Amino acid sequence: MSVTTTRIAAVDTYDIRFPTSRELDGSDAMNPDPDYSAAYVVLRTSAGGHEGHGFTFTIGRGNDVQVAAIDALRDHVVGRPVAELCADPGSLYRDLTGDSQLRWLGPEKGVMHMAIGAVVNAVWDLAAKREGKPLWQLLADADPAWLVSQIDFRHIGDALTPGEALELLRQGKEGAADRASRLLLRGYPAYTTGPGWLGYSDEKLVRLAREAVADGFTQIKLKVGADLADDIRRCRTARETVGPDIRIAIDANQRWDIAEAIEWTKALAEFDPYWIEEPTSPDDILGHAAIRSGVHPIKVATGEHVQNRIVFKQLLQAEAIDFLQLDATRVGGVNENLAVLLLAAKFGVPVCPHAGGVGLCELVQHLSMFDFVALSGSTEGRAIEFADHLHEHFVDPARIHGGRYRTPTAPGFSATMHRAAIDTYRYPDGAFWAADLAATGTKERA
Amino acid sequence: MSVTTTRIAAVDTYDIRFPTSRELDGSDAMNPDPDYSAAYVVLRTSAGGHEGHGFTFTIGRGNDVQVAAIDALRDHVVGRPVAELCADPGSLYRDLTGDSQLRWLGPEKGVMHMAIGAVVNAVWDLAAKREGKPLWQLLADADPAWLVSQIDFRHIGDALTPGEALELLRQGKEGAADRASRLLLRGYPAYTTGPGWLGYSDEKLVRLAREAVADGFTQIKLKVGADLADDIRRCRTARETVGPDIRIAIDANQRWDIAEAIEWTKALAEFDPYWIEEPTSPDDILGHAAIRSGVHPIKVATGEHVQNRIVFKQLLQAEAIDFLQLDATRVGGVNENLAVLLLAAKFGVPVCPHAGGVGLCELVQHLSMFDFVALSGSTEGRAIEFADHLHEHFVDPARIHGGRYRTPTAPGFSATMHRAAIDTYRYPDGAFWAADLAATGTKERA
Repeated sequence: MSVTTTRIAAVDTYDIRFPTSRELDGSDAMNPDPDYSAAYVVLRTSAGGHEGHGFTFTIGRGNDVQVAAIDALRDHVVGRPVAELCADPGSLYRDLTGDSQLRWLGPEKGVMHMAIGAVVNAVWDLAAKREGKPLWQLLADADPAWLVSQIDFRHIGDALTPGEALELLRQGKEGAADRASRLLLRGYPAYTTGPGWLGYSDEKLVRLAREAVADGFTQIKLKVGADLADDIRRCRTARETVGPDIRIAIDANQRWDIAEAIEWTKALAEFDPYWIEEPTSPDDILGHAAIRSGVHPIKVATGEHVQNRIVFKQLLQAEAIDFLQLDATRVGGVNENLAVLLLAAKFGVPVCPHAGGVGLCELVQHLSMFDFVALSGSTEGRAIEFADHLHEHFVDPARIHGGRYRTPTAPGFSATMHRAAIDTYRYPDGAFWAADLAATGTKERA
Repeated sequence: MSVTTTRIAAVDTYDIRFPTSRELDGSDAMNPDPDYSAAYVVLRTSAGGHEGHGFTFTIGRGNDVQVAAIDALRDHVVGRPVAELCADPGSLYRDLTGDSQLRWLGPEKGVMHMAIGAVVNAVWDLAAKREGKPLWQLLADADPAWLVSQIDFRHIGDALTPGEALELLRQGKEGAADRASRLLLRGYPAYTTGPGWLGYSDEKLVRLAREAVADGFTQIKLKVGADLADDIRRCRTARETVGPDIRIAIDANQRWDIAEAIEWTKALAEFDPYWIEEPTSPDDILGHAAIRSGVHPIKVATGEHVQNRIVFKQLLQAEAIDFLQLDATRVGGVNENLAVLLLAAKFGVPVCPHAGGVGLCELVQHLSMFDFVALSGSTEGRAIEFADHLHEHFVDPARIHGGRYRTPTAPGFSATMHRAAIDTYRYPDGAFWAADLAATGTKERA
């Protein structure tokens, strides 16, 4: 190694868990008691200074497995020259997804793929910090040909070629500067899931729905799928609370089979749901297509659990979804999400990202804002999910004003947590957990 | 706990790796240098005696992540009453796939799902040992209603109902005793991948292909997809060696996009390939359907990387495959493979399981033999893959005679490795690796 070349010196990992299950924040038909967690990674360089931060969002147990998966990638990262890495994050992304032995554990899905996403996102965070730009702007300013070079077209070439991607990105440059100015002034539309968690009382639902409307949101979301009578009552309550002009999306979190999804959704049609989200398994492309036909004109949305670009490709090819809900930490990082955004643009399907959890709002705003400035060029029919949890733990938290995300301007991917949050919520030895486990006299099932 | 109830007392895990990459055994277009490995689990009971053995097959790096995932399931297993568990393995299977926090890491795919499969298979091994029957016989003797109770129909109900499954299994009982007798006498058809690994020389290919025919095999398989000129030469060589009456399957191990798959396969058509296996991503249902149309009359086979019953369901619904190649350790264990076998029976698609690796032949023979005796009732168009690697490490190894698997008669799922194999190949501290790493002075990338 040359002494003058700055290299990645360390890949530090942390198992961070927040005890959100105690308030039933985030409860839905499949996930009754999540402890929002992050398998967190920090890339440190031999020169000190900027670090790259990234993470996989999980909901508690298994966060240690996710950390082990990130650890298994360490040897691919340590020693890389930082300037080369940041000039071409795709080189690492390809090496990680292409590791022939690790690939057996997927390929490109589940624990191993999310670990790759965490590391790749950390590289983009580092690259944006070094450039002195928020990530959305780094992407929007980038040369289209370079962006195309960051994408792996394998297994999506039948739906999107490099030439088509290049053309879409070149078209996206038209008017980009004007859109960037508007974005900085006005931010990006949001919708809120805050009122609708399944564990909340009707009173809390009403109160939070009123607050959401007062705060400027024009769309809220309700979790459904556990009990039809409850869902009818909650949807009626919500509709009566917000009136006819606020969109109410509903979200079943994969609970149903095909026929059940169609019947249940139709039973809620009188409350004018805007979309039905995750009506069935995220793996069921043909099922989503059948449901979309069956519930028309109610729209179908999915994506937070869609494992990679290949499944998104098919959801689009099969005309199975009206809204594509990409997630920042489910797939292989920014590189794969560039492919997903381009697929959505090619097929003309609006992207309404999944967020909430811990840190997802912070990350995903950058992807939608890039999409607006330099790809789709529109916020029409688009909104980023927002849930008001755990933002205080981030150095550059997502900020909402008048029902819209404010545009981040700090350099990076907004992924960096405060050191105090890491020290407090590291599991099981951070200050919170050490005290909690000592008090209960037991280690929670981990 | 009652002192008289036998319970699961321990879940022991082992990271076992065999240095197969040094001989290029198992090399293909996507996996040039696999070290066949097992994330191995042993269930011990409070009474001692029978143990339940299971594992996930991997190809080296990442085997430690797979072990961590099995470890994360421990608290679901330890303390369970053994008699209840063995009388209803489905209760554990449902608890594991239904753990709402762990589910986020899939759902039902990749590292976490394979870990569930290892543990569930270990329970079936224990159950069969306690019954004193090989697993295929335990399943074939079982009451159809009980088998149906072992299946999770969620997300496959549009393709297979519990009532349909019950009817198929009841029909399967007709003539089952006679088929079991024939199976014990004659075994089950096999085909061999031995001659066809991509890393072998043409001379080795010729020699091994001749030996395969002499040994009674009527089908061999060649790896393809790295270089077309090489593939043409190797297919011609193989066809000239075995003559026109031996089936030659070809296997691209996911290497291609759709158009490329069709073109490449057609370029090999003159050598009369029996099937093209894994022509593209295992996630691409629509892609497989397009390839199947495009290469007709050459048949399409896939499944070793298919993540769960929901993707198999769609491959069948889309008429995308001619042969379904289930894998014993990719999905959620015997319970999910019962669903897959029933889906295949419902759609009339023959099951030709994936095997090879380490221990896959040992496991999967039980599933095909159950299918023959008590479900499809036929071996027509069916054969189990065979590769002659690493069988010596198993207490009850798969045995081949005259190109057919001999029927196992020892109690259990044939999953148990010799203790000496575990002690030798445990990574990185088993006798082999300790000596190897000391000699090379370095720890291999793990």
